[in-house]
Amino acid sequence: MENEPLLMLPGPVPVPERVRAAMLRQAINHRGAEFGGIYADCVRVLKGLFGTEHELFVLSGSGTAAMEAAVSNFCRERTVATLVNGKFGDRLQKIAERYGTAVPVASDWGTPLDLDALECALEEGAEAVTLVHNETSAGIKNPAPEIGAIARKHDVLFIMDGVTSIGGDTVEADRWGADVVLTGSQKCLAAPAGLSAISVSPRAWEMLVADRPFYLDLAAYRKSAAKSPMQTPFTPAVPLYCALREACAIIEEEGLEMRIARHRRMAEAVRSAVRAWDLELFPTLDGIHAYSNTVTAIRIPGGISDADLRGAVKETGIIIAGGQDHLKGRIFRIGTMGAVGAPEILATLAAVERAFLRLGYTPEGDGVQAAAGVLG
Amino acid sequence: MENEPLLMLPGPVPVPERVRAAMLRQAINHRGAEFGGIYADCVRVLKGLFGTEHELFVLSGSGTAAMEAAVSNFCRERTVATLVNGKFGDRLQKIAERYGTAVPVASDWGTPLDLDALECALEEGAEAVTLVHNETSAGIKNPAPEIGAIARKHDVLFIMDGVTSIGGDTVEADRWGADVVLTGSQKCLAAPAGLSAISVSPRAWEMLVADRPFYLDLAAYRKSAAKSPMQTPFTPAVPLYCALREACAIIEEEGLEMRIARHRRMAEAVRSAVRAWDLELFPTLDGIHAYSNTVTAIRIPGGISDADLRGAVKETGIIIAGGQDHLKGRIFRIGTMGAVGAPEILATLAAVERAFLRLGYTPEGDGVQAAAGVLG
Repeated sequence: MENEPLLMLPGPVPVPERVRAAMLRQAINHRGAEFGGIYADCVRVLKGLFGTEHELFVLSGSGTAAMEAAVSNFCRERTVATLVNGKFGDRLQKIAERYGTAVPVASDWGTPLDLDALECALEEGAEAVTLVHNETSAGIKNPAPEIGAIARKHDVLFIMDGVTSIGGDTVEADRWGADVVLTGSQKCLAAPAGLSAISVSPRAWEMLVADRPFYLDLAAYRKSAAKSPMQTPFTPAVPLYCALREACAIIEEEGLEMRIARHRRMAEAVRSAVRAWDLELFPTLDGIHAYSNTVTAIRIPGGISDADLRGAVKETGIIIAGGQDHLKGRIFRIGTMGAVGAPEILATLAAVERAFLRLGYTPEGDGVQAAAGVLG
Repeated sequence: MENEPLLMLPGPVPVPERVRAAMLRQAINHRGAEFGGIYADCVRVLKGLFGTEHELFVLSGSGTAAMEAAVSNFCRERTVATLVNGKFGDRLQKIAERYGTAVPVASDWGTPLDLDALECALEEGAEAVTLVHNETSAGIKNPAPEIGAIARKHDVLFIMDGVTSIGGDTVEADRWGADVVLTGSQKCLAAPAGLSAISVSPRAWEMLVADRPFYLDLAAYRKSAAKSPMQTPFTPAVPLYCALREACAIIEEEGLEMRIARHRRMAEAVRSAVRAWDLELFPTLDGIHAYSNTVTAIRIPGGISDADLRGAVKETGIIIAGGQDHLKGRIFRIGTMGAVGAPEILATLAAVERAFLRLGYTPEGDGVQAAAGVLG
């Protein structure tokens, strides 16, 4: 534990020492063969996690930079149907508004998306749809395959934010018909914060706009990636690429299927604890929306404040997340992403249970043992 | 030497082990007090290096990201006089063209800027001027104070790229009347690549445009920096901030004046060697332009190819730079930035001298001893 607080957030997540140690090495020339090899290794592994055979680039910027790259390179002055049922869907909508016309297809945070409304927006001429696959702010997993099918039926661009699903849950970008897919380094990949990755389908390249940003110009990324050795158009954040390559090596060693199964089991363990406590999971679902397998959002029981709850948990050395924006004070969130496993989950649930008791709330049953049953 | 090649490039430069080791620590919550303190430490030291009391932000993106932030936040749909006498001046011009109208005030690379032409452009209505203080591609230091005086006379926005001067040469942003000043982490600061810093004067804030980019929105940076603890609007590249803070601590320990004097001495040592060899420095100067104190550009002697020269030097484990774009094959460049000192300079000059001899070129005099005289 290194006497550092344990981050059980929906990102940033604990970074394995091997990955951090990869940043210790001396600076290298980012135009040389060694850097090219590191970049190529990252791309090869990430394509597997994305489920894509399309071009993929690693950007020296956070997931938000990749969101902006997606919208600004392909949707400037276009009409975009933006699916929103949480904070990150809302962020994609805000970005779409800066570059073109956004047609919000919005539901309450944590509730199912309205696919009929999406069909209407596309029938009325929207040329693209944006989706957050796993909505971190609300703990809901949105139905990407179904939305991909609608996008393909209408032949529109499908931009998918996989920031908190890729590497922790099944993503099949090509099979689902997703054109532009993106993720961040500090979530399920368990690498340090600061990089993002984006894949681009041939259909998306056909929609590339002329008036692109400079730093996030994906045509420039494409041109530099085609060089030998592989390069980035501008100076990359070299230590973070070294770390990401190591994180990718760990993912390959674990195996993607095993990794996804582990993430599912961790989230299921948290949900079992919530049921045992007789608390309420925040999302409301239908047949195609699901609970997130990488972050669980839980309603805070009556009589307990968010600050007290998270403060009491923090005394145990564990950091959990509160709600964002209008959900602040109403929910708390436990991330189950990256390298963490049964010990961290059990410790976190035990710390939450202890906090409940200290704050005068007696849960219905034993959440820790319920989770242990799932993890064991 | 760690058996790694010695980078004597105009960036990236060798990063002291202390700085790299700062990235080993476990991930932290970037909304917490610890990260806020790290960010604030960086800002405090960087303000000293910039010579500014204005607001300053650290961006999770390279120097090019900061260049785009400068232009896109303050010059969209405006006319900008772009001073160009090298590759990075040209890059600022290209960015200005993407966002507004660029009026190039161009000289041949490595030759003095035409300040009369600048006055004309400003009289004809340009609302901003862009300058690269130290033009890395050509080894020339441009007269920032004089250009600042012209900008102030015309009351236009003065954007100054200090990527390869800040931290290695005197920069007095406020005294010179520079409004938006920027640098990168992997040059004279001797931190890893991936971050940049930008300062913004009150005059610049008055020119803030409404239609800003999202990831590089400086108003968002301003709002987040004002929070307690200090924050960034989007997930920052945390390990790089930890490293930058350590690099700033080293700069404080050395003292800025001593550091600048050391950079000057290193560049003067390289120039002494060039004179002893009877080779030609690339820039042509006048009374107000000067040789760079952080990178020296030297014409390759006749009969020697760029590839052979740099290849022979590389056999000694030392990486020097060639020319960029149309200067490829015509010049070679030796960076004297960051943490390097007399041993690295002497080793580099000895390796170059050995390469000359091996390639059949006998220099006029002993460059290494001439440099040793300056450094001793």
